[in-house]
Amino acid sequence: MNRITIQTSTNQYDVSIGKGLRHRVLDFLTKKYSQIFIITDSNVEPLYLDDVSNALKDSYSVNYSVVPAGEGSKSIQIYYDLMTEAIHAGLDRESLIIALGGGMIGDLAGFVAATFMRGIDFIQMPTTILAHDSSVGGKVAINHSEGKNLIGNFFPPVAVIYDIETLHTIPFTEVRSGYAEIVKHSLIHNPSFWNQIKQIELTESLNEAELSDVLLKGIDVKAKIVEQDERESNIRQFLNFGHTLGHALESELGYGVLTHGEAIAIGMLFALQVSEAIYQVKLPYQEIYHWFSKNDYPLQLPNLSIEKLVDRMRKDKKAKSQKVTMVLLKAIGEPTIEQLDDQKLHLWLKDFIQELNHH
Amino acid sequence: MNRITIQTSTNQYDVSIGKGLRHRVLDFLTKKYSQIFIITDSNVEPLYLDDVSNALKDSYSVNYSVVPAGEGSKSIQIYYDLMTEAIHAGLDRESLIIALGGGMIGDLAGFVAATFMRGIDFIQMPTTILAHDSSVGGKVAINHSEGKNLIGNFFPPVAVIYDIETLHTIPFTEVRSGYAEIVKHSLIHNPSFWNQIKQIELTESLNEAELSDVLLKGIDVKAKIVEQDERESNIRQFLNFGHTLGHALESELGYGVLTHGEAIAIGMLFALQVSEAIYQVKLPYQEIYHWFSKNDYPLQLPNLSIEKLVDRMRKDKKAKSQKVTMVLLKAIGEPTIEQLDDQKLHLWLKDFIQELNHH
Repeated sequence: MNRITIQTSTNQYDVSIGKGLRHRVLDFLTKKYSQIFIITDSNVEPLYLDDVSNALKDSYSVNYSVVPAGEGSKSIQIYYDLMTEAIHAGLDRESLIIALGGGMIGDLAGFVAATFMRGIDFIQMPTTILAHDSSVGGKVAINHSEGKNLIGNFFPPVAVIYDIETLHTIPFTEVRSGYAEIVKHSLIHNPSFWNQIKQIELTESLNEAELSDVLLKGIDVKAKIVEQDERESNIRQFLNFGHTLGHALESELGYGVLTHGEAIAIGMLFALQVSEAIYQVKLPYQEIYHWFSKNDYPLQLPNLSIEKLVDRMRKDKKAKSQKVTMVLLKAIGEPTIEQLDDQKLHLWLKDFIQELNHH
Repeated sequence: MNRITIQTSTNQYDVSIGKGLRHRVLDFLTKKYSQIFIITDSNVEPLYLDDVSNALKDSYSVNYSVVPAGEGSKSIQIYYDLMTEAIHAGLDRESLIIALGGGMIGDLAGFVAATFMRGIDFIQMPTTILAHDSSVGGKVAINHSEGKNLIGNFFPPVAVIYDIETLHTIPFTEVRSGYAEIVKHSLIHNPSFWNQIKQIELTESLNEAELSDVLLKGIDVKAKIVEQDERESNIRQFLNFGHTLGHALESELGYGVLTHGEAIAIGMLFALQVSEAIYQVKLPYQEIYHWFSKNDYPLQLPNLSIEKLVDRMRKDKKAKSQKVTMVLLKAIGEPTIEQLDDQKLHLWLKDFIQELNHH
């Protein structure tokens, strides 16, 4: 088992990564709780709820709630219903919530914990690769009909328990999606991390030791950045590498057409091209393109309005100015932030999409 | 103008008390915001919204939302609607929310600010005496249909601007209600503060200098306690003096029959009697009773089930044990916390109510 300690502005917590940790949840509780409430989704429930529940039930009164899988559950209605269930279960200020699932469950259950009686402890048990990203940084949220994650808090968990075995049950598209964030962490961090990843061949059967290692490294990259900048004003923006176009693609294509990771894979390729153009440097674009390509990331796009994409990029992260802000690289491991000229961006994006589609 | 600096676990902010401060709001902004959104209620809007808005509009784009006066507005629906309006107004992470009103508005607008895009700055402009209490401590919340303030955060404002002139427009029952919390702060603090208050005669026409002085002292008492114990585990409980029976009376009688302050006035009298019985000390019960009485606090109660009251007292603050916890006084300014025997409590409460009603 591996362990990283994450420092937040107010406290610290451990991320533990290992095999079969779901059977040993009890070992990770650092205090005695009045009771435990597990929040999970309809995909994860049949797979792991019993394991976690059984690991706790001799020592604790355990209640749970299962929400439908998918982003739709991050709604105000389901949030309020979870509050109701928590109250009916008798939760008090000394109770613990466990978020058992992917990023959606972490966001939703985390926000329930953050706001139940003004905040009670919660533990994240991520069951996807992508959730390695959201398990660090303390961001919890639900969606507003006007936009994703508009209602939320910064509220770190008291522990993250990452059972590597639970990653075997995620679909291959989710493996790809999760690995895209690991690639991102490597590219903004240093060449050697990227050199490790580029050797990896993604297949249905995961290599646990390898996955555990790159997850740990990805978490470490994010943790270092977040520790320095807990409230996303400056360097935390580096974590948006690939996300400006990525988010625009997700919403312009309609959510679900590309997974989040697939969208940011394309976003990273674009950011690499823009970086090369602006800084007049040579980056390993081909190598990175090749890795995405051989691992079956979808790298062709349907006919899209460049105008609309740029418009969405401008609105991403509620940009303070009217210009598009992008994270670029001067070299692998050297991220920077630039505000871009609209006209140039337009041309670069047009060329980029054409080139992608004629590859 | 008077000013107190409140220290929180993460930052600090000033409470400013003075005449006509609503016309000088601009002077209290410590940074440049992208825009300002005022949340107020239907009682306060016709009185002060224009003043505040006019004080800002030359320098800022100002939007506002008016919710119905009364505790009913602390609902999930109105909370969500305020989020929608804030989004439509174009608020971003660099915007400011102003809570213009009493405790209800502070709680509601504060929770909107705490959770809008994971938290943006907010300023409280209390317009009631009672709000002096809630303006310190960082508690923000909305109600769940199963109970008050069950959904919330600890989220301190960046400033509290207390315009003493706005207190002239509150109804006399609200003056009484607010003063009860000041009395509480005096009794848990020291004899000299209480000796000052007992000279005061509450009338429709407030003495501004006097009110400003006792508000300042009340805020200071609360601030000192909260600074030492931001998350209400130990000494913060002292602030519940009078509240265990007070809350039970409010809910048993139905909200609105007694104001919050009237209910805790009775709660304090009971806590004084219990204190005398348990510690075998002589407290100025008669003097305090007399002050409440001459200022027309309702001190008679209808026929109530002692059983049910004790039951509600047990549930207050989600008591950890099955016993009722009360804040008592060994002397004025010497609060303590005791768990009470059910049978004795029952008898004391029965005697107390009988005595009240035959006074």
